[in-house]
Amino acid sequence: MMNLYEVARFLEAHDNYDILTHAYPDGDTLGSAFALSLALAQIGKKSRVITTGIPSSFKYLPKLDEQEFETQTVVSVDVAADSLLGSNMSQYIGKVDLCIDHHGSNTFTAKAKFVDKFAAANCEILYKLFQRMDVKITHDIANCLYTGISTDTGCFRYTNTTAETMRVAASLMDFGCDTAYINKAMFETKTKNKIMLERAVYDTMKYCADGKCAIIHTTLDMIEKLGIGDDEMEGLASIPRQIEGVLMGITMREKQKDFFKISVRTNENINASDFCAQFGGGGHPAAAGCTIEGDLKTVTEKLVKAAERFL
Amino acid sequence: MMNLYEVARFLEAHDNYDILTHAYPDGDTLGSAFALSLALAQIGKKSRVITTGIPSSFKYLPKLDEQEFETQTVVSVDVAADSLLGSNMSQYIGKVDLCIDHHGSNTFTAKAKFVDKFAAANCEILYKLFQRMDVKITHDIANCLYTGISTDTGCFRYTNTTAETMRVAASLMDFGCDTAYINKAMFETKTKNKIMLERAVYDTMKYCADGKCAIIHTTLDMIEKLGIGDDEMEGLASIPRQIEGVLMGITMREKQKDFFKISVRTNENINASDFCAQFGGGGHPAAAGCTIEGDLKTVTEKLVKAAERFL
Repeated sequence: MMNLYEVARFLEAHDNYDILTHAYPDGDTLGSAFALSLALAQIGKKSRVITTGIPSSFKYLPKLDEQEFETQTVVSVDVAADSLLGSNMSQYIGKVDLCIDHHGSNTFTAKAKFVDKFAAANCEILYKLFQRMDVKITHDIANCLYTGISTDTGCFRYTNTTAETMRVAASLMDFGCDTAYINKAMFETKTKNKIMLERAVYDTMKYCADGKCAIIHTTLDMIEKLGIGDDEMEGLASIPRQIEGVLMGITMREKQKDFFKISVRTNENINASDFCAQFGGGGHPAAAGCTIEGDLKTVTEKLVKAAERFL
Repeated sequence: MMNLYEVARFLEAHDNYDILTHAYPDGDTLGSAFALSLALAQIGKKSRVITTGIPSSFKYLPKLDEQEFETQTVVSVDVAADSLLGSNMSQYIGKVDLCIDHHGSNTFTAKAKFVDKFAAANCEILYKLFQRMDVKITHDIANCLYTGISTDTGCFRYTNTTAETMRVAASLMDFGCDTAYINKAMFETKTKNKIMLERAVYDTMKYCADGKCAIIHTTLDMIEKLGIGDDEMEGLASIPRQIEGVLMGITMREKQKDFFKISVRTNENINASDFCAQFGGGGHPAAAGCTIEGDLKTVTEKLVKAAERFL
């Protein structure tokens, strides 16, 4: 693995970059990609960002004009595994020169890597990288990096946030990033559809295991009636775990007729991954998933029984 | 007005403190009071915190054992006006020796004052104060101060958050404050009642002025049926303004039969205070209030008409 100083020298030594984000891009992968592109431009390098389906809420991120060049170097940002590249990026698999990431679980195939699992966001790594290069943190770069850091930390709320994260964010604020705009767009704006969806989902809330488990669901019928797209379904899984006394929150989403995608979020040493393993799934201790076939009633009953045994 | 150095010398020169919070105490006034009490104990001073009705979510804040002493010095923390003291503190009005606050609008009656309106939280002031005294930031003090700073900034999301705020929070994290516990308790926990209330309130959502205004309400009937206390009604007012495209969010709460308390929250240069002035109310540009008499239908119609004229 490279160290950050070596990454800086690598970027200075190469040119004509394709910068890859992961599929279903979020604030951290997009903020990283655009910030890197702007930084490379400052040192006279050409680059383009290769991504897929940027959610409209991220349209404010500053972008460079399209540049004509033949790709010589491929860099990925915030991509933890080959399978996480978009379907439009399959030709890059095995051809990535440098991978910059903050996922401890990183298995991405690349000729060189820099992975710092203690960084709350990939954008936190890039801030430190730019300090080791002849790159000025402009207003645009600060906006990109702040976006990545604030979104990956739930606005400094999640446990990945460190004192170092706070200090990097403070520096970005010194460089004039638009925290008011970004925080409002990222954390205080919901579409009307999202409000309708949350309302419908609240109506499905069930408690079991003496209130230690809460379950919500969406069905194909509900989604069709509400006219809601898949990209508006984000964030539902965090709803049931928020409730006082709930140790395990379960979200059931019907993806196809009688086929449910289950998301499990847990508090206080309840292992979500172990719970999901019973149904052939897995994940992290506090956030895991699985799929279960069956109609709403059958699948709910399976989960209730499993939860009551488990808790 | 004193400077911070003088405040530090004042606290060292006096003894036997009553520390006053404001009524309906929040994280910042409680965090300030308990932190000051712990700091004073370190330099050999006795103190007690005078407050009223600590919400159960703040029970984790570290408290000193009750001490016996005759009051010699009265200090208020985060109290902007005499009227904001609890009804159990009226005997202190006009007898406060030192007022430490961060409200630019401060009109509190005190013999000496330190007010810094650029501090995001009163606890941010106390952090800097303790650096000018022989006070060590213990784990307990760090927890108190982080609680005040995170709650008054919506976990670093509101526009009062500065680079300095982030750096103070970073230092508190260096001192080992329990950010995971505090953030979860403050920002990710809702009571079952709260969930029921939000669900009921979502069902009342109305849009007017081409979707630029959203209105929600609670009635005495709803609250009685749900069995919800007044302290669980916090935070409702932020719901309608969150919706994409909404410039003015109005929350109507029936406080007595046919008597509504109206909270108005606005975005992007829509002046909430001007809007409320039409009904004899007022407040800040982005957050204001008023009261209107009448039944639900009449009051709603009045607000809809006013909103359509105003936007």
